Amino acid sequence: MIDKMTNYHMTPDEFRKQGKQMIDWIADYYENIEKYPVLSQVKSGDIKDQLPDSAPTESESFGQIMSDVNSIIMPGITHWQSPDFFAYFPANTSGPSILGDLLSSGLGVQGMLWATSPACTELETRVLDWLAEMLQLPEKFKSTSDGGAVIQDTASSAALSAVLAAREKKTNYQTNDSGCLGNLVAYISNQTHSSVEKAIKIAGIGKNNLRLIGVDENLAMRIDLLENAIQKDLQDGLIPFFVCATVGTTSTNAIDPLNEIGNICLKYQLWMHIDAAMSGTAAICPEYRYILDGIELADSFSFNPHKWMFTNFDCNCFFVADRSVLIKTLSILPEYLKNQATESGAVFDYRDWHIQLGRRFRSLKLWFVIRHYGVNGLRYHIQEHIRLAQQFAGWVRSSEEFDLVAPAPLNLVCFAHKNGNDFNRKLLETINSRGKMYFTHTVINGQFVLRMSIAQTNTNEEHVRQAWENIQETAKELMDVY
Amino acid sequence: MIDKMTNYHMTPDEFRKQGKQMIDWIADYYENIEKYPVLSQVKSGDIKDQLPDSAPTESESFGQIMSDVNSIIMPGITHWQSPDFFAYFPANTSGPSILGDLLSSGLGVQGMLWATSPACTELETRVLDWLAEMLQLPEKFKSTSDGGAVIQDTASSAALSAVLAAREKKTNYQTNDSGCLGNLVAYISNQTHSSVEKAIKIAGIGKNNLRLIGVDENLAMRIDLLENAIQKDLQDGLIPFFVCATVGTTSTNAIDPLNEIGNICLKYQLWMHIDAAMSGTAAICPEYRYILDGIELADSFSFNPHKWMFTNFDCNCFFVADRSVLIKTLSILPEYLKNQATESGAVFDYRDWHIQLGRRFRSLKLWFVIRHYGVNGLRYHIQEHIRLAQQFAGWVRSSEEFDLVAPAPLNLVCFAHKNGNDFNRKLLETINSRGKMYFTHTVINGQFVLRMSIAQTNTNEEHVRQAWENIQETAKELMDVY
Repeated sequence: MIDKMTNYHMTPDEFRKQGKQMIDWIADYYENIEKYPVLSQVKSGDIKDQLPDSAPTESESFGQIMSDVNSIIMPGITHWQSPDFFAYFPANTSGPSILGDLLSSGLGVQGMLWATSPACTELETRVLDWLAEMLQLPEKFKSTSDGGAVIQDTASSAALSAVLAAREKKTNYQTNDSGCLGNLVAYISNQTHSSVEKAIKIAGIGKNNLRLIGVDENLAMRIDLLENAIQKDLQDGLIPFFVCATVGTTSTNAIDPLNEIGNICLKYQLWMHIDAAMSGTAAICPEYRYILDGIELADSFSFNPHKWMFTNFDCNCFFVADRSVLIKTLSILPEYLKNQATESGAVFDYRDWHIQLGRRFRSLKLWFVIRHYGVNGLRYHIQEHIRLAQQFAGWVRSSEEFDLVAPAPLNLVCFAHKNGNDFNRKLLETINSRGKMYFTHTVINGQFVLRMSIAQTNTNEEHVRQAWENIQETAKELMDVY
Repeated sequence: MIDKMTNYHMTPDEFRKQGKQMIDWIADYYENIEKYPVLSQVKSGDIKDQLPDSAPTESESFGQIMSDVNSIIMPGITHWQSPDFFAYFPANTSGPSILGDLLSSGLGVQGMLWATSPACTELETRVLDWLAEMLQLPEKFKSTSDGGAVIQDTASSAALSAVLAAREKKTNYQTNDSGCLGNLVAYISNQTHSSVEKAIKIAGIGKNNLRLIGVDENLAMRIDLLENAIQKDLQDGLIPFFVCATVGTTSTNAIDPLNEIGNICLKYQLWMHIDAAMSGTAAICPEYRYILDGIELADSFSFNPHKWMFTNFDCNCFFVADRSVLIKTLSILPEYLKNQATESGAVFDYRDWHIQLGRRFRSLKLWFVIRHYGVNGLRYHIQEHIRLAQQFAGWVRSSEEFDLVAPAPLNLVCFAHKNGNDFNRKLLETINSRGKMYFTHTVINGQFVLRMSIAQTNTNEEHVRQAWENIQETAKELMDVY
């Protein structure tokens, strides 16, 4: 940002002006967000066809760009920050998070090594220790013990890191050198998130060496089937090495029995990873901390503040009980990255804790969020979301047209109209196409099931009530047509 | 952002106020950035020790948080955006990029599927096609052909994706199912970035199946040695499957012979990946496009706008010639992600193009940058950086104390004082510890070599001249002491 006459950079004055307009644009967006259809209603190609085929040769004004944002981009947005967004799991943001992330973009540090910005590493370590305490994690997951944590982009990358660390620990770090040999076996339930299957493929373990364990009536992993599978694989000369337990499955929010799985992992010396991507946040409330009971038996654990903790994407927190295994698995030290701090062994170099080398200063937004809300503020909003979901589940229970299809332990309600799969699918599509709200589906034992994920930052009781009315009224309307 | 009385969220008014102050904070930072020591001078633990052991129970004010940013965080920042940053490779940002990223944080969309924000997918596809044209890539890398591109976080993840696609193509997609069998072999030069070795380990190939091919006097991969290694592995019953060629190695900016490597890959049916993380950007200038000659033989190619194209981290662009191979390698489709658009086959779902499921709207910042600068503006700054680097190389050449240690084809100058390794190490540490500038080193054939990477957004002729004077004067001072 130097002399405007000799270069093309945006001047500080221009940055101040456009930046403040952008802040106003975002504030206006949140004030008007309920006016947009939640699910974008454009057709394939609608956006692309309005964009030129080639990049502009000459500089364009910021006004031109923002004009295109408004006219071309906005119709193609599905509004994840709308209080009427009940789809998938949320990807929440919040004011302090946006501003923390803005500071990160402005500072523009790349924290691959401690030395390349000590604050980037040390703030991350400290804030993740705060989180360990907030979640009442065992001491072993803190940096002050043998473990520690790192911010990863997504639970997918965290699961891959866990699989890799487990693979190397089990094979005494030989797989990194010699490659996979097709004899390691991993275990998940048939409800575990698809990212673990993807990790197993990426890591060279092979999908055929991934056992999908059956679930009980609550859709939680069955321990007897897990142990049977392990024993059979051992008999077949294979090497069981990894179990992923889930706290809050994507489909229905089922909670696997951590204690029992942990004891089996202990007995057979398997790595136990806990994927609590969505629901982990609930454990900051003392009354919901029970969902992590048994975590003292785990080797690794991850959850996403970018889902339910008001911290914008991407922000996954990945905790390990023994950081030396993770570091030994993922460490590479070429000459051009050597430096005194690294060689002293006194610092963390987080590039050895994940797949990527480069990393942005993501702990800033997490720090901003935790300080802005305080632990009590975060608890308040989590408790409120769960209260609203339980209220919604109550409405479904007392309805004559709809059934609750799975337990709703926290903030996800799985339900279906009594009229069968085709009707439920039609109901979902009709409501989503009208734009007032957006929710999605899953399939449980062949049944097409509607999912209400009640966790968006700005959702309050009125939004949930209107959603329920909308669902009931649209169902009635469709029944008249049928 | 609803009623302040009933919740802890930041109100729109508060967001407007704090947001505008943050914009001013960032503009002030850039106006004063040369007053900071470029390399943070704190010691291990200095930052962490100033942060409380526990998260705050109650909400804290934004003023308190920003006060801690100034007093605790800032001393721990290594200033990557300083015009006196000549270390590693840059991780540049710019005004339009910061604002594009701010818009992305504000919109908070999660673009895992086309349907979850069509604009997120379609803008990305279009802008990457623009880049393909700007770089004069073969048609096959465009979305309008059989290929296409995706924004990944880093060149590490892109390299891993390339390795996986190559692995699956070579084994007819059997490795995803059956796991690795220890017989696939990959080839890189001994100058290739460490991320490729990391990818080979992650993918279950094994480091022992990675051949480090020797280099010529310009530190470029030797074709004769590559072909010899492939032939030997074939004789040994192994299966060569992957070569990574580099355009601009991290150590010295060496450029591997793409045409010759490509022909060997064609002959032996190996996947050819080109890693041009740093230097790829230069190819948008017609006079430097030659660095990509031979790319028509490649299967995949990646470069980082977050290095030299003024787009803040993270933004890697990964191009593939046949997107179906990549998608078939990385696709997973659980029930809860099914939707009409995906089932129609008419859209891209970018979560099938990389490791992660979730993704933020990163094409916004890239679009903002390209439009703000225009192609001519981007070329101007790239050309200027190369001109400054060539000038610096000229000064080294005509110096009696310093030698140029490697060719400087673009904007990286590798040089050393004639006084030997210990002296050069001392020179580097002394200069960096004084904070006026920051540069780093590499080792070439046992020689400790200084690296001047001249590519920071805000670096101009005066900064480079002062750096050279600083280096000369400090060397003189140290010689007096020695």
